[in-house]
Amino acid sequence: MAPVIKPDPDPKKKPRTTQSGLPLEVSYGPETLAEAGWEPEQKLGRAGKFPFTRGPHETMYRGKVWTMRMFAGFGTPEDTNERFKYLLEQGQTGLSTAFDMPTLMGYDPDHARSLGEVGREGVSVASLEDMERLFDGIPLDQVSTSMTINAPACILLALYVAVAEKQGVSPDKLRGTLQNDMLKEFIAQKEWISPVRAHMRIIRDMLAYCTEHMPKWNTISISGYHIREAGATAVQELAFTLADGIGYVDLGIEAGLDVDAFAPRLSFFFDVHNDFFEEIAKFRAARRLWATIMKDRFGAKNPRSWMLRTHAQTAGVSLMAQQPLNNVVRTTMQALAAVLGGTQSLHTNSYDETYALPTEDAATLALRTQQVIAEETGVASVVDPLAGSYFIETLTDQMEAAAREYIDKIDAMGGIVKAVEEGFPQREIARSAYDFQRQVDSGERAIVGVNKYQSPGDDDDIPLLKIEPEVEKQQIDRVKALRARRDAQAAEAALAKVRAAVRDESINVMPPIVEAVKAYVTLGEICDIFREELGEHRDPAYL
Amino acid sequence: MAPVIKPDPDPKKKPRTTQSGLPLEVSYGPETLAEAGWEPEQKLGRAGKFPFTRGPHETMYRGKVWTMRMFAGFGTPEDTNERFKYLLEQGQTGLSTAFDMPTLMGYDPDHARSLGEVGREGVSVASLEDMERLFDGIPLDQVSTSMTINAPACILLALYVAVAEKQGVSPDKLRGTLQNDMLKEFIAQKEWISPVRAHMRIIRDMLAYCTEHMPKWNTISISGYHIREAGATAVQELAFTLADGIGYVDLGIEAGLDVDAFAPRLSFFFDVHNDFFEEIAKFRAARRLWATIMKDRFGAKNPRSWMLRTHAQTAGVSLMAQQPLNNVVRTTMQALAAVLGGTQSLHTNSYDETYALPTEDAATLALRTQQVIAEETGVASVVDPLAGSYFIETLTDQMEAAAREYIDKIDAMGGIVKAVEEGFPQREIARSAYDFQRQVDSGERAIVGVNKYQSPGDDDDIPLLKIEPEVEKQQIDRVKALRARRDAQAAEAALAKVRAAVRDESINVMPPIVEAVKAYVTLGEICDIFREELGEHRDPAYL
Repeated sequence: MAPVIKPDPDPKKKPRTTQSGLPLEVSYGPETLAEAGWEPEQKLGRAGKFPFTRGPHETMYRGKVWTMRMFAGFGTPEDTNERFKYLLEQGQTGLSTAFDMPTLMGYDPDHARSLGEVGREGVSVASLEDMERLFDGIPLDQVSTSMTINAPACILLALYVAVAEKQGVSPDKLRGTLQNDMLKEFIAQKEWISPVRAHMRIIRDMLAYCTEHMPKWNTISISGYHIREAGATAVQELAFTLADGIGYVDLGIEAGLDVDAFAPRLSFFFDVHNDFFEEIAKFRAARRLWATIMKDRFGAKNPRSWMLRTHAQTAGVSLMAQQPLNNVVRTTMQALAAVLGGTQSLHTNSYDETYALPTEDAATLALRTQQVIAEETGVASVVDPLAGSYFIETLTDQMEAAAREYIDKIDAMGGIVKAVEEGFPQREIARSAYDFQRQVDSGERAIVGVNKYQSPGDDDDIPLLKIEPEVEKQQIDRVKALRARRDAQAAEAALAKVRAAVRDESINVMPPIVEAVKAYVTLGEICDIFREELGEHRDPAYL
Repeated sequence: MAPVIKPDPDPKKKPRTTQSGLPLEVSYGPETLAEAGWEPEQKLGRAGKFPFTRGPHETMYRGKVWTMRMFAGFGTPEDTNERFKYLLEQGQTGLSTAFDMPTLMGYDPDHARSLGEVGREGVSVASLEDMERLFDGIPLDQVSTSMTINAPACILLALYVAVAEKQGVSPDKLRGTLQNDMLKEFIAQKEWISPVRAHMRIIRDMLAYCTEHMPKWNTISISGYHIREAGATAVQELAFTLADGIGYVDLGIEAGLDVDAFAPRLSFFFDVHNDFFEEIAKFRAARRLWATIMKDRFGAKNPRSWMLRTHAQTAGVSLMAQQPLNNVVRTTMQALAAVLGGTQSLHTNSYDETYALPTEDAATLALRTQQVIAEETGVASVVDPLAGSYFIETLTDQMEAAAREYIDKIDAMGGIVKAVEEGFPQREIARSAYDFQRQVDSGERAIVGVNKYQSPGDDDDIPLLKIEPEVEKQQIDRVKALRARRDAQAAEAALAKVRAAVRDESINVMPPIVEAVKAYVTLGEICDIFREELGEHRDPAYL
């Protein structure tokens, strides 16, 4: 008789720590919190009040469900415009733009480095014409738009302001978020142009510009997402992201801004990985820690400066090519963790994203995932429903303490800019990424369908999104035609003004960049000035 | 410019109650529990200790993860045997058998009433030969088997004992569960043979038989699942299921059994529907309420009699034909609720089950859902992780109080048998089912893809399991051939002994049924005796 029954896996091999390595007891009871001297009044308070552990808003999702914001972008601006409109028709409540690699790196489609990459992993945008195509038929006073762009963020902001002006919408009416978080680029994502300090000055100018002209705009989305995706633990993601936040607040203060004038427009962006409770605790700890930092360290008086508001995205790295529909399960769990953690906005990954950009059907299912959670499960009915749980509150404390330890260490190194220049967060993340991979390779950490429960024929035949090679040719032809057609003198003059501002730190770069894009100066042309005038960043890990 | 942005749905329309209609505050804090006089020592205790709110076992899933038990059955016994072996190979940890309609109703495949139904919605089993084919190559001392069978449950138990004997496994070594819960059949599922009281006597005989011979076997799986699927609320499911449990304990005591001899082998089976927190609270309230009933009402002394152990299945009725992959999301949420509620065993529905029995791929994905939750998310690392949450503890109290109110009402009516004969639970469920449908029809209750977020072409072209018409012919030929081939005299003699036992309440029916199936008497032949000797049940709703 065949032994068809597999033995129960050794329970001793089950994780006894969180994914970040925080120790886990078997059980938590009232004595756990009592021994820790945990007091609800001090640690929780109420939602909408300091220290915001329970959420930034008093009634949370009972008042307004989180924004369902699906990251989308591929091909030509028209392709992405069509996807935007489709997602809005499907009930999405905010836009989020993915740009292609040339745009992210500041090259026009016809640059040699753009070859083969135009429109491939995001939308290609090189000029005001492209930006108009991207938002055609979408009234910018009625939608909030997130743009995932960093090194050339000032140019995309200028393009958005210019398109809005053509629609008759003034900058003060624009709602949305620019990622614009270069510190995490230097730490993790590695899409940079200028060196750290040179670029921090451009961000400083944007802080000043947005504080003056764009009161509803989130100037920087301080992003843990890419730190996490590069292999950081949840603790490291939390710590380095808040340390970056401290760096930007320092920058604004150095620029002479009142902290309460710009801090309310800083927002955050976190990853949501597999460890369900650790992720929930991360969001709660992030709010409490940031509130304390803003109040005690920076002396902010405005409660809106204390308040951490965040976007969240399910973990791209957690998706597996094997048995791809298992990714729907992972994304559902992660989305729920973000919601129970109290996110303000959420992107859910599509199950096919390990293979390619999402197809329309896969993106729709990812959006439906949020809609089922919001509409059918009742989890949005009650504020911070897990508050008071002996385990969750203990884990929230653990996350906060572990992140604070990192922040103290970074302070002792002279701050985050110094730490990044010395490669400290980079090395910490590399070590975590190595540890994780070793656990997977040894089977100590199970991944269903990958190192456990494999099935033959797992690389399922799922439909994939194809980007046609014509996209690149079309975008190259367009940008060349634009340069030939535009008022050459006006473009030259505008470029010269940008160069003058870049050279002179006492001039804010934003107004001349807005003027330049209106004169149809291209993204690559402005970035060339950055490269020429500020030099290019070199990774300290390879120095 | 087209108004592509849809307005945010009116937050006032969001549910302010649970799916059962329990009122929900916007926020719960320490004051909520303090005002209710909630004491952790009394309401929670520790896992593995009275009142078992936190779980029946001290270390819960840290010690042993729940049993992953996928309900499976279709076609011939060989078809189902193949699926069983496939699921075990995929990492399933327990078997669960779905029988076809003729088997459930007590008819052989060649009966006129079986026409078109043989093997269609479950496996066809009419004789010991079929049962041997069903478990061929599966060592019954190494697996636990659940059988969803009620009116003919005594015959399937006899068949299982007889197959085990052929494998050299004695009844005291057999682990598993027989559904055998006729009260919920009369209330909700409506697959019956004899009238209520006549059938209760057969269950009484099985209780006595199993208590004597099968110490590891769960005699009755007291099932809320079908009550819920018929349209009951979570509160009604909880209340009527525990009321049924009280009925069976009364029955055992009437049979002269010591409560502590048979109560430890009663198990439960609950549904898990969409309302995430209400479902978690339901499992926790069920354990506390049952422990109190067993200790205080029945004076049970053995802690194992107090302990509610349960299987759970995600809600079949919550699955939608439109946009079928949304069902993966629903099932994931429901599975997580069952796990956070502390279930001992779990079946996850396949996303294609609104159309047909699950294909192998869809069943695999459903199993993978449990494996991802168990292996990747860390939720199994900590006992009852939500304990202490102001909201969850309040909701657990609300569920308990609401269920207790129903149980008191049933007691006042003279007990559950009387209440069922008068159609009381049946009417309550019908009212809830009507209310739910009205809410869906009016749009007050959103169902994604059905009354909200519909898409054109939603009835996706998904692969379906087809049962070939040859299955019926083959099963008919087999049972006819068996009757022709068997020792006719032995079969006649065995049937006569079954008839004598059925007629005489002082003779336990189980031993003669075991002898009869060994003599290749068929399921239909034994059920004919029930029909002839005990009469047939008539639904009080149609009297």
